[in-house]
Amino acid sequence: MRFDHAGIATDDAEGLTELFETVFDVPLVHEEEFDGMDVRFLDLESGYFELLEPREGGTIARYLERNGPGIHHLALGTDDIERALASAREAGIDLIDEEPRGGAWEHEVAFLHPKSTGGVLIEFVEH
Amino acid sequence: MRFDHAGIATDDAEGLTELFETVFDVPLVHEEEFDGMDVRFLDLESGYFELLEPREGGTIARYLERNGPGIHHLALGTDDIERALASAREAGIDLIDEEPRGGAWEHEVAFLHPKSTGGVLIEFVEH
Repeated sequence: MRFDHAGIATDDAEGLTELFETVFDVPLVHEEEFDGMDVRFLDLESGYFELLEPREGGTIARYLERNGPGIHHLALGTDDIERALASAREAGIDLIDEEPRGGAWEHEVAFLHPKSTGGVLIEFVEH
Repeated sequence: MRFDHAGIATDDAEGLTELFETVFDVPLVHEEEFDGMDVRFLDLESGYFELLEPREGGTIARYLERNGPGIHHLALGTDDIERALASAREAGIDLIDEEPRGGAWEHEVAFLHPKSTGGVLIEFVEH
């Protein structure tokens, strides 16, 4: 599997976009309102930063309350998300999403439970 | 700049290597003892997971005590780390490392202060 993106929880997607574009030269390539969040993808050449700013309650809003802004998850790209989930299940990994679901940018996504993966919240994503 | 690696703090680099190799098909491509840590790089095709397991005290040991295992930092690759640092400094970002220093795998590295970058600990790395 390959690196797809790092998901970053933020309460200022616009400010962070401007800063990252300026300093890291990572242009904004996609933005949408998804699941009550402002979601922005910045191009890292071989993957993306995904900035997640909640507009109402939800998972990321609760994450921000508990942890403050920062790195929320890492997404691994696959061409066969069903097979990736089956492989994770066979290895004894707890799944947050038993089946793929629609994510931002019309991707199929599924999350694994971080207690099974060394404290790292991993997302599978199929474009 | 491009994605280079995600640094992961762990108390079990060997177990996590085995799990990630099996489930995510990301082979171990480099391992060394560096700065009192077992440091392992797993190949993500367009970048790496960098597993960091402290063998004695130090930054990552303190991180684990405070936060438990998980994603510690994101590294961005550059061909000119001095210029990248100058650009960050100009943008008003606080630097943890004012000058590049030797990192694992003989890379030149420098960290930016997460309070300046949306809570995300960013490392610049030049191979």
